[in-house]
Amino acid sequence: MPPTDPVALTAELVRCPSVTPEEGGALRLLESVLAEAGFECTRVDRNDVPNLYARWGGKDAPRRFGFNGHTDVVPVGDAAAWTHEPFGGEEIDGEIWGRGSVDMKSAVAAFVSAAVDFVHDTPPEDGALILAITGDEEGLCQDGTLALLDWMKETGESMSVCLVGEPTCPETMGEMVKIGRRGSLNAFFTARGKQGHSAYPHKALNPLPAMARLMDRLGSHRLDDGTDHFDPSTLAIVTIDTGNTATNVIPAEARATVNIRFNDLHDGASLIRWLEEEARVVGETFGLEIEVAARVSGEAFLTPPGPLSDLVAGAVEAELGVTPELSTTGGTSDARFVKDHCPVVEFGLVGRGMHAVDERVPVEQVHQLKAVYRRVLEDYFA
Amino acid sequence: MPPTDPVALTAELVRCPSVTPEEGGALRLLESVLAEAGFECTRVDRNDVPNLYARWGGKDAPRRFGFNGHTDVVPVGDAAAWTHEPFGGEEIDGEIWGRGSVDMKSAVAAFVSAAVDFVHDTPPEDGALILAITGDEEGLCQDGTLALLDWMKETGESMSVCLVGEPTCPETMGEMVKIGRRGSLNAFFTARGKQGHSAYPHKALNPLPAMARLMDRLGSHRLDDGTDHFDPSTLAIVTIDTGNTATNVIPAEARATVNIRFNDLHDGASLIRWLEEEARVVGETFGLEIEVAARVSGEAFLTPPGPLSDLVAGAVEAELGVTPELSTTGGTSDARFVKDHCPVVEFGLVGRGMHAVDERVPVEQVHQLKAVYRRVLEDYFA
Repeated sequence: MPPTDPVALTAELVRCPSVTPEEGGALRLLESVLAEAGFECTRVDRNDVPNLYARWGGKDAPRRFGFNGHTDVVPVGDAAAWTHEPFGGEEIDGEIWGRGSVDMKSAVAAFVSAAVDFVHDTPPEDGALILAITGDEEGLCQDGTLALLDWMKETGESMSVCLVGEPTCPETMGEMVKIGRRGSLNAFFTARGKQGHSAYPHKALNPLPAMARLMDRLGSHRLDDGTDHFDPSTLAIVTIDTGNTATNVIPAEARATVNIRFNDLHDGASLIRWLEEEARVVGETFGLEIEVAARVSGEAFLTPPGPLSDLVAGAVEAELGVTPELSTTGGTSDARFVKDHCPVVEFGLVGRGMHAVDERVPVEQVHQLKAVYRRVLEDYFA
Repeated sequence: MPPTDPVALTAELVRCPSVTPEEGGALRLLESVLAEAGFECTRVDRNDVPNLYARWGGKDAPRRFGFNGHTDVVPVGDAAAWTHEPFGGEEIDGEIWGRGSVDMKSAVAAFVSAAVDFVHDTPPEDGALILAITGDEEGLCQDGTLALLDWMKETGESMSVCLVGEPTCPETMGEMVKIGRRGSLNAFFTARGKQGHSAYPHKALNPLPAMARLMDRLGSHRLDDGTDHFDPSTLAIVTIDTGNTATNVIPAEARATVNIRFNDLHDGASLIRWLEEEARVVGETFGLEIEVAARVSGEAFLTPPGPLSDLVAGAVEAELGVTPELSTTGGTSDARFVKDHCPVVEFGLVGRGMHAVDERVPVEQVHQLKAVYRRVLEDYFA
């Protein structure tokens, strides 16, 4: 069998118009490739979100290496603004063009082709390869990787470790492996006072001085100084609104929103308790109530540097001659779900151009990525 | 000649639909009454705003007592909500009903009838009575009393003292004489930063922490402790707005407005300098610019207790048996223009119901007000 071509597979995947939550033919394509290579494939769809689970080897094998990724893509935006067909998958001057070429069909193509070749060339004894591929990482994410993990738990499937193929490199190939992510929460504040005339403030109860004080306190507070693996946590006041157009009226209500990105020195619950206490103290000072409604969109997590990050970083060094930084920067990914099940790290392409018009991936990077993934498998099962 | 009836004159004036800037027949009615009583009448219209200047006695008389008032009224609002015709001027159960009956056609009727009777019964030697009546006190106020005062200056007319007939009593007749007013200014702040992603606040420049700090500083600042004649100055934050609906975006701009009501320890210019300096200091702390646009709608002024307030307070005591408080509370009035020309105080009715649906004035108060005005004239020229 000749080596599976990750570039051809990327182009084929790009041609599947799999805008979340459309399957677009992408998972069907992968299922046919993997089934032919001896993988046991199961569609784990939930609430119309398509997901594919593929395993080579026994489910109770002592070492079960997993890859996680997604085939869904964000919308093309203004299709007329694209230089080439967004779902064309054309190769032009050494690049594959199209929506999802960077985020992250090429990485899926790379780990699928690496896995297929690996089990053909050097099938591991007592080992299993697991590919957990979702059709919703760009949308609500409630029935994507979460559904795969739920199903795995129910049916006794599991991964010993997992590598997520999201783009991780800011500028040059191989420079960054992600070993965790910051958490994120939004808090919505409403200060309620009593309306009145600006000329007689003592007869009103203005919510704005309290809101200004609270926002100044929150904005000035240093949450922490960072850790060995995380930048300092940040708090951004994203909006303060009142909507009062009359200068002679003191408003009854004011609203504000803050977004916190936090490292593993905190968790969502402890931060919410802190925000509520700040609102209570300031509210009490001004004699009014400040309501807090908070939503945690992801907890911070870390797979501390160790065997899994060593494995991936070593493969990157061996194949690309670059020592990757072990980082926790950036937004969220499905690694936030996987981390509750097994150690997880992320490594993928240079992320530039993802979600933008004229998204395209250098063919060379796709080959490099497959080589790294293949090396990871070889070293893991060595 | 029988005494002029201020109640009948009030009712006649209410029947003139003189919603700003309509003359509605009100000034023509007064002109005919005053001309017949020997007043020299001049219409001092400017930019379509009708104004009436009436003088009895020589323009160079050593003592020239002035009254100031307005015949224009605010709109009726929902006419269907009125119990009686808003321009009916009906007398029902001892009250004259209609728009402007309180603010302030009854006071104009009271000082016109007091003046007519006074010059008939006891014409003062070497004295002059001046009535400066405008048709725009409820509107823009730029071509009302200001036009009268400008015209007077140009033509060598002047008042030694002036009594403005605006409603001054909060609850019961005679309880308050106004000897000054607080000033008022609005300041509009715009903080400009640099938009960015909430996950990377160090790459953005968030204007909101600076705005929160500035508003907290302004809101916490005690401008003064008041004076013998003025309450402490107040600052009300009336709005803070951003309009950012995306929790993952740091906004580029934030706006806020404050309203300051200030006593005569300040003037508009000194307050604006203070606001600009605060904005500069806070802006510098946060490395961004906070723009300030301020508008003074009236300076504070005071006619210190003395002969004029003694005169008016004495007349109130004599006629009503009530010792009025000398106050500087409340919003603005045309006294803010008169004060640049001569000592000015204000005395009028109980202000309840002005500008509201079912505005109406007790007949008794109109008689009382005429009696006080008549006594003021008698004592002034005694």
